[in-house]
Amino acid sequence: MKHDQYRENIAGRADVADTPELVAYYQQLAELKTGALWTVANKIEPWQPKSSSVPVLWRYRDLREHVLRSVELVTPEKAGRRVIYLNNPGRQDVAAAVGWLYSGLQVMHPGEAASAHAHSASALRFIMEGRGAYTIVDGHKMPLEANDFVLTPNGTWHEHGVEADGAPCIWQDGLDIPLVNAMEAGFYKVHPDLRQQITAPVDDSVALWGAAALRPHNLGWDKPYSPLFKYQWGPTYDALCRAAQASDGTPYDDVLMHYTNPVTGGHVMPTIGASMQRLRPGFVGTAHRHTGSFIYQVAKGEGYSIIDGQRFDWRERDIFCVPSWALHEHVNLSQSEDACLFCFNDLPVMQSLSLYYEEALLDNGGHQTILSEGKA
Amino acid sequence: MKHDQYRENIAGRADVADTPELVAYYQQLAELKTGALWTVANKIEPWQPKSSSVPVLWRYRDLREHVLRSVELVTPEKAGRRVIYLNNPGRQDVAAAVGWLYSGLQVMHPGEAASAHAHSASALRFIMEGRGAYTIVDGHKMPLEANDFVLTPNGTWHEHGVEADGAPCIWQDGLDIPLVNAMEAGFYKVHPDLRQQITAPVDDSVALWGAAALRPHNLGWDKPYSPLFKYQWGPTYDALCRAAQASDGTPYDDVLMHYTNPVTGGHVMPTIGASMQRLRPGFVGTAHRHTGSFIYQVAKGEGYSIIDGQRFDWRERDIFCVPSWALHEHVNLSQSEDACLFCFNDLPVMQSLSLYYEEALLDNGGHQTILSEGKA
Amino acid sequence: MKHDQYRENIAGRADVADTPELVAYYQQLAELKTGALWTVANKIEPWQPKSSSVPVLWRYRDLREHVLRSVELVTPEKAGRRVIYLNNPGRQDVAAAVGWLYSGLQVMHPGEAASAHAHSASALRFIMEGRGAYTIVDGHKMPLEANDFVLTPNGTWHEHGVEADGAPCIWQDGLDIPLVNAMEAGFYKVHPDLRQQITAPVDDSVALWGAAALRPHNLGWDKPYSPLFKYQWGPTYDALCRAAQASDGTPYDDVLMHYTNPVTGGHVMPTIGASMQRLRPGFVGTAHRHTGSFIYQVAKGEGYSIIDGQRFDWRERDIFCVPSWALHEHVNLSQSEDACLFCFNDLPVMQSLSLYYEEALLDNGGHQTILSEGKA
Amino acid sequence: MKHDQYRENIAGRADVADTPELVAYYQQLAELKTGALWTVANKIEPWQPKSSSVPVLWRYRDLREHVLRSVELVTPEKAGRRVIYLNNPGRQDVAAAVGWLYSGLQVMHPGEAASAHAHSASALRFIMEGRGAYTIVDGHKMPLEANDFVLTPNGTWHEHGVEADGAPCIWQDGLDIPLVNAMEAGFYKVHPDLRQQITAPVDDSVALWGAAALRPHNLGWDKPYSPLFKYQWGPTYDALCRAAQASDGTPYDDVLMHYTNPVTGGHVMPTIGASMQRLRPGFVGTAHRHTGSFIYQVAKGEGYSIIDGQRFDWRERDIFCVPSWALHEHVNLSQSEDACLFCFNDLPVMQSLSLYYEEALLDNGGHQTILSEGKA
Repeated sequence: MKHDQYRENIAGRADVADTPELVAYYQQLAELKTGALWTVANKIEPWQPKSSSVPVLWRYRDLREHVLRSVELVTPEKAGRRVIYLNNPGRQDVAAAVGWLYSGLQVMHPGEAASAHAHSASALRFIMEGRGAYTIVDGHKMPLEANDFVLTPNGTWHEHGVEADGAPCIWQDGLDIPLVNAMEAGFYKVHPDLRQQITAPVDDSVALWGAAALRPHNLGWDKPYSPLFKYQWGPTYDALCRAAQASDGTPYDDVLMHYTNPVTGGHVMPTIGASMQRLRPGFVGTAHRHTGSFIYQVAKGEGYSIIDGQRFDWRERDIFCVPSWALHEHVNLSQSEDACLFCFNDLPVMQSLSLYYEEALLDNGGHQTILSEGKA
Repeated sequence: MKHDQYRENIAGRADVADTPELVAYYQQLAELKTGALWTVANKIEPWQPKSSSVPVLWRYRDLREHVLRSVELVTPEKAGRRVIYLNNPGRQDVAAAVGWLYSGLQVMHPGEAASAHAHSASALRFIMEGRGAYTIVDGHKMPLEANDFVLTPNGTWHEHGVEADGAPCIWQDGLDIPLVNAMEAGFYKVHPDLRQQITAPVDDSVALWGAAALRPHNLGWDKPYSPLFKYQWGPTYDALCRAAQASDGTPYDDVLMHYTNPVTGGHVMPTIGASMQRLRPGFVGTAHRHTGSFIYQVAKGEGYSIIDGQRFDWRERDIFCVPSWALHEHVNLSQSEDACLFCFNDLPVMQSLSLYYEEALLDNGGHQTILSEGKA
Repeated sequence: MKHDQYRENIAGRADVADTPELVAYYQQLAELKTGALWTVANKIEPWQPKSSSVPVLWRYRDLREHVLRSVELVTPEKAGRRVIYLNNPGRQDVAAAVGWLYSGLQVMHPGEAASAHAHSASALRFIMEGRGAYTIVDGHKMPLEANDFVLTPNGTWHEHGVEADGAPCIWQDGLDIPLVNAMEAGFYKVHPDLRQQITAPVDDSVALWGAAALRPHNLGWDKPYSPLFKYQWGPTYDALCRAAQASDGTPYDDVLMHYTNPVTGGHVMPTIGASMQRLRPGFVGTAHRHTGSFIYQVAKGEGYSIIDGQRFDWRERDIFCVPSWALHEHVNLSQSEDACLFCFNDLPVMQSLSLYYEEALLDNGGHQTILSEGKA
Repeated sequence: MKHDQYRENIAGRADVADTPELVAYYQQLAELKTGALWTVANKIEPWQPKSSSVPVLWRYRDLREHVLRSVELVTPEKAGRRVIYLNNPGRQDVAAAVGWLYSGLQVMHPGEAASAHAHSASALRFIMEGRGAYTIVDGHKMPLEANDFVLTPNGTWHEHGVEADGAPCIWQDGLDIPLVNAMEAGFYKVHPDLRQQITAPVDDSVALWGAAALRPHNLGWDKPYSPLFKYQWGPTYDALCRAAQASDGTPYDDVLMHYTNPVTGGHVMPTIGASMQRLRPGFVGTAHRHTGSFIYQVAKGEGYSIIDGQRFDWRERDIFCVPSWALHEHVNLSQSEDACLFCFNDLPVMQSLSLYYEEALLDNGGHQTILSEGKA
């Protein structure tokens, strides 16, 4: 076995060639459950991040029929949940869509209801189509419509369903399951009754915590996640439109707003952040890169993104990912319609751990050379 | 001079009678700029707070004509601002409405504009009547309507005016001037140009920071006060109505919401907090008391409050105050209409200094005996 | 009565002369418990702070005999505590030494013990002389020696005494009583048994929380004040000496260290901060001024301070105060010995309320012209 | 390929058997870079954590000669650093000692000095033997002795060496390299001059920030890690001895103190925490388990730990690890001498991400049954 495949001939880096004596030594070290740092130093201390995830665009027109077909193939009782998960070619070992983030498309038919459970993973849902979907979180029931964003934070009892008079629903699930597993902190519980009691008026979370810059007097909150569980599309879109009139936006993302925990002003959950951004008609962004893993769903419009030199054309409901430290730039192809991108990410993790780094592309007017067109 | 007027015959309290020897000793101490603690201990260490402010109701129907008359009596140039301030009988030395809070009613005619200034005092405005009022804070202009609440935080350049095509406007000013003077930290500057440049789109503060649980990505904020300067009546009232459907409210205040700094979830300014509460039709509150000084303006409806045994009947635009540790309870007299009370207070101060204490009245079903009807 | 004594002929300031019509109007306003702002605006909105406190130096050689004499004049049972308090000529109405800070010198003889009490005021003690003094805070007993600094935070049961085999002790008390009274939040309780049980090993607070940059694993702490109650002179002085070797200090205060709450790194109590500073031999400071009220005790050495143009010469155990916004500069008169100044102040209040302002004297090489020598 | 190996016959869990139709469907999904959640759900949502790390004890008497031999085998110039790293059998893919923590033993001879570099990984050092070692962090030089603990936080320039008149030194390095790589945020820089300038007095970090509960006035600090870089053994051991007299300690760890950032009272770095604990003579701990990965070095004494049923006997300088959710209990074998365990861990990560869970073993008096004796 070769031990010198990571040599670099640079001062301050390891550059040790294998010799019979050294290889014998390495063998002795291995028996003691140790190794020589210089054989791996250049590998484990890279000059900059190289993500194991690859950029992927999942086209909804490709996925939709397969998602719907799962209803015929498996029962909710047997499957637990009928979900098609996004499996990044570089992250199949951990079933991640990108980095340490899991994502799947879940389908439910009218009258169906999943059983209640709780886990130490944090979860969110973004509604794609259908009518009558709802989520219940710790006894708080919330009806959901297209482009609504809902939290099921770590440790909460939660369950989903579709009202009997609704239409088949599909939504995107986002979770930090891979991260929680990597951190070896995954716990899972099935609700003893399989169903929760609804203990509060429907949508009370929005009624009490969803007002702009107002906090209910008599309610304490000391959980590490937001007491506001549902963020509706209507007011979110309105907010982006208003902000676009008052702000130049950013060169990379035009007008982008983070969903927040109203109690702290910070991220919605300790491990997952989320945002909605609006690219004005004709917006052509420039490129930057940053650490952290990002999953986008197109909530409105069409355009394309260039990610590490690959162009990905997207339209409504398509999903794509940007791996850590990948250069990316977004373009709204329409000169008359805006485009909106929902995003969830591990930005709270990167910030908590002081591992967020960011850098703009300065060459070529801030635009990447397109190396290839991404294929779904 | 008598030195033993505060004696208490209780173990652990001072109980020293004057003697000629002691009085001589006290005289010697005074010459050294000192005194004997036991002569004042029981005075300066009371068993519980006794506010020097008295409860007062200022009836708008009484004040309004006097406020309007100031326009005839003084020019803005001479007066600086035409304001009638509320002068609590117990706090005339510091020109306070209650405790360390100042309040006044300001009038402006169409086309008038006050000169820009800045001070270390924190200020707010609550609009009472008129059309075309506006405030400019650090270059951000905001049109104002009845029941809108606007901040002019400590250190900001600010000025007020009424558009030429408006109608005469009256609003309530609230400031911590007495507190800032007491803390000996009052600074005042007149703007070198007497007028600010408007440097941002009108109402950009609301457009960028006034969305529910959304934070603009590209804007930093590290000031100790809210970047959202204006809180509009419409969404505030809607929020209270929604919250009332999802919550039982509190026995003292029914449904009360604090205006917050969206960046932190906390109070709008470091020294002044504000809230709006809604008493549902027929609401009869019970009594409690707490430290801190509170000034209320009736934004809607009519009812009464009992404050330290005095009943004060109020209707729209009336203003009243609740001194520290005064028992108080609120009643909405209508069985069909709700009543709304705007309030500003020094709660942030009491909380920052760990001096907030609260206590419910337990006797008599939580209701005070009315000792007298308060007279304006 | 004259209403125009505060006129200023400056744009943006009030400049309204009394007229019979106006005076009649003012009278009407007064009947409504109101006033015209322009009659008081220039008074309540000063250009900069003008403290009502005056700089004072209290010489220990003048006070000591009077403090000791109190033992002969009053019993602890009658007096509660035998304390001579410092009574700033500008603050006699609130019995303050400066600003809103109270200070007194307390004496106790061997075998004496004061009864236990609790109050919403925050307190500290700085030991001046004697042997065998101790304080008990919430069941934690702490022996005290000269220059030790001890907290008795708001709400804690506390009592003081001197061991039977000790020597008469004198210490300085520092409290925020005037502030707490001003905020109308003063509560006082006598301990039901007049004495506390000692519930923890002697000096456990120091043993558990007094180690540098180490926190005990199994102890929670959620109080707003430090769990470390005693700060000993020895390690404090050593720390200043070490810091002096590693730092240039500041031009105003040479090497100054703030006592901190080890749980937060912040001030020891929410309303009172404290520091110890060391002026190296020959240190000649320059002048600055800032908001907040400061009381100093000379822990070591001799020198002088110039406060608002008055020179105050001090030596060990002398106490002096610096009012808000007063220019001050310190000088160590010795070329061979250092000088140490203990200080307590309301800096936490000024910072919490965003009212801390600071400014260096730039003229005259940063030195004030001495206008007079302060007299005790 | 089999897709149903994770089936569980429990309500709320996936239990879908492979059929030809399903397998064909799975194949279609794979082509779209997706999968069916129910084929992996039970794997990625475990009932509780099962660490991929195994408990290991590395005996210093086994490792020491190999560490020293590296000096003969490779030059510092070629190797970068001569380090033997601890390679957990379950984590060889990421070169981790346990979980996402790297550790190695580094040796340096008198007169040697490693080149300066910086990386986004956070590092610490714990000195094992020798004389004359030093570390330089951002221009601050610190001499190091046995059992001293030193930080080289993320982003700082740092370098190590041994004075020419010293003796060969061995220390333990601890880093979060595997975590930073997993988070795809690893950056590495070699110092342009290969050596830093020393810009501050030796040990100034200790002089300025290493005093108990004192903070230098004139120094700001806004970094996410501690300004105190070195924690000396002497005062740490003294602190543990004092705390042991004032506290019962905990049933699991006896007296344990966390090294803290004095500016915040929190962990020393955002991703790595550290502690020192003292097991009193005869201490027999009970078992608990918690999430997070922990690496121990025996700083003093001898005893054993039972980790997930394996007994590991340890003495001074031995190193062992406790994987996430592994039951563990510690015993001091001596009835007369105390034992001290240094530990570093990812507790800050688990807490920031709200993934810290803890549970005591309640059965069998809190003691595990020993299943086997761990072999190094």
